Amino acid sequence: MRTWEQNIRRVVPYVPGEQPKDTSVIKLNTNENPYPPSPKVAAALRNLDAEQLRLYPDPAASELVDAIAETYGVVREQVFVGVGSDDVLAMAFLTCFQSERPILFPDITYSFYDVWADLFRIPYEVQPLDDAFLIRPEDYKKPNGGIIFPNPNAPTGLLMPLCQIEEIVHANPDVIVIVDEAYIDFGGVSALPLLKKYDNLLIAQTSSKSRSLAGLRIGFLFGNPKLIGYINDCKYSFNSYTMNRPAIALGAEAVRDQEYFRQCTQKIIKTREWAKLKLRELGFLCGDSASNFVFVSHPEHEAGELFAALKEAGIYVRHFRKPERICNYLRITIGTKEEMDALFAFLTQYMSGDRSN
Amino acid sequence: MRTWEQNIRRVVPYVPGEQPKDTSVIKLNTNENPYPPSPKVAAALRNLDAEQLRLYPDPAASELVDAIAETYGVVREQVFVGVGSDDVLAMAFLTCFQSERPILFPDITYSFYDVWADLFRIPYEVQPLDDAFLIRPEDYKKPNGGIIFPNPNAPTGLLMPLCQIEEIVHANPDVIVIVDEAYIDFGGVSALPLLKKYDNLLIAQTSSKSRSLAGLRIGFLFGNPKLIGYINDCKYSFNSYTMNRPAIALGAEAVRDQEYFRQCTQKIIKTREWAKLKLRELGFLCGDSASNFVFVSHPEHEAGELFAALKEAGIYVRHFRKPERICNYLRITIGTKEEMDALFAFLTQYMSGDRSN
Repeated sequence: MRTWEQNIRRVVPYVPGEQPKDTSVIKLNTNENPYPPSPKVAAALRNLDAEQLRLYPDPAASELVDAIAETYGVVREQVFVGVGSDDVLAMAFLTCFQSERPILFPDITYSFYDVWADLFRIPYEVQPLDDAFLIRPEDYKKPNGGIIFPNPNAPTGLLMPLCQIEEIVHANPDVIVIVDEAYIDFGGVSALPLLKKYDNLLIAQTSSKSRSLAGLRIGFLFGNPKLIGYINDCKYSFNSYTMNRPAIALGAEAVRDQEYFRQCTQKIIKTREWAKLKLRELGFLCGDSASNFVFVSHPEHEAGELFAALKEAGIYVRHFRKPERICNYLRITIGTKEEMDALFAFLTQYMSGDRSN
Repeated sequence: MRTWEQNIRRVVPYVPGEQPKDTSVIKLNTNENPYPPSPKVAAALRNLDAEQLRLYPDPAASELVDAIAETYGVVREQVFVGVGSDDVLAMAFLTCFQSERPILFPDITYSFYDVWADLFRIPYEVQPLDDAFLIRPEDYKKPNGGIIFPNPNAPTGLLMPLCQIEEIVHANPDVIVIVDEAYIDFGGVSALPLLKKYDNLLIAQTSSKSRSLAGLRIGFLFGNPKLIGYINDCKYSFNSYTMNRPAIALGAEAVRDQEYFRQCTQKIIKTREWAKLKLRELGFLCGDSASNFVFVSHPEHEAGELFAALKEAGIYVRHFRKPERICNYLRITIGTKEEMDALFAFLTQYMSGDRSN
């Protein structure tokens, strides 16, 4: 080892799902939206002027911030935007979780939380989900340095009712509680109305899933203006210009087109509900996901084997090897009806024994 | 103050130059390139498929990384890319400056260095430039936790010869030395060849200036594969997908079009050399900038007043109020010949007394 390596921060990074270059793959592994973004995004893309790329973007990304504020009925000072929800959550961790006390999050949840905590040297303590994979609000009423959980939770897809979220936020006035609503648009109830009552609440959302813009990298936070101001100070201490010109212009169009957004999310919800029935018919245990994915296990087929067989057939799903409690589960993104048909055709054949030995 | 504010990281952010929305302004304040990006960037923009934006980008941004590696004659494992050079430098600070000892940088330099150090709680010690605003290599031979300086330096524009850079890198084998080459393409000599000899060297560059892509946010680092690997681990612990699809596709085209790049930078160098003469004719003290800006003061006209008068006339330049040694200087970006003509026409009139009282 070279001496300079002593001063290097060593971390074990988050490993994102595979992004295969083979476009013939049926990609149900990273919770992308199977439908294209709003036609207004395509129109804005055609109107982008390459010449203008020589100029810095608006560092405040006002056009995008204003579109979000207007769509969600908040003031612009309540909105923070960044390069996907990972960026806004990383910035929220860095800004808000400065206590000596551990932050709390579920043991089974988005696997980036412990990575950020490790990166920023934030102490943390995981709270086990119950046997039905549900978050227990009472676990979040002990002394802590902050709280974060997704709603619906990932990768379970299970929704927590708003009254329980309020219970957690209300019990923790001295710390920031972050509700990560990456998947809220697929049938969940947002905690946004609670912002009026609680100034210790932060809500994260993203354009990657429900607005079909994973490739453009847009995430946002809602919070009280003072808290958003502190996060902006950290952001401006990290990178003045995080949102590039295409992201600002196209993102604003996507956020404004609420009608298209509703149509798309409704289609996905409909496919999901049908997929749940089909999966149960095939013998899968399938929870009541409120997101754009389902989290399933099969009593007779080991998840790792199913994952490999699906991959070999050109169908990518996600298999988390840890924690151990979920190593026999698969997370399957809801694709188009046609993609799900292909999935079920394969599974039916596989389970009929043609391939299982 | 609310109790949750006790756990908030408080920082004094970097303040970027103004980005006026009025497009009639002559904008010489943020070192943007006055020429559009390569025509190949415009072509790639027209070819972008809005439908594909629903999919995550390649987290490794391979197309862009490979274009940079090929253009600069290094291997892809030596290249790290991020959202502008601010992003790659922030990530380098977070990854590489983990010592208890202070990092060293000049007192007059890019004003983001102390902001990052404060954000990440990295101790630092500034080293005064000499009376001619030059970096003294001997100041960087004391015990330290890392070193960073721009070459050419900002906002002075002054270039350090490669032999002095090597002297600093060679004297500090136990820490990482970052050479911030944001402005190297306007006549400087890059430290890139030193990478073969020194594994403690990191070089930062950007597409914002010489490749006219400030609006697309692309910065990159060159270093040894092991060091770049550590920085990538931190990046993947912060945000898996920092580079959006437009940035990857258009950035790769810009980097590959070396011929256009050479033409543009040569035009700017030519305008700069002519501008230096004109400024000196007008009585300005103007150092020998090797960048796309000049750093000037006038014995008879106070910088703050000149700044205000220029702004009133619709010509934006940059005035740093601190540190005090440079509060009587203006940093003027090199624009097109026509923009500089307008600047000189105003200054000539102003100095003839028409406006000076």
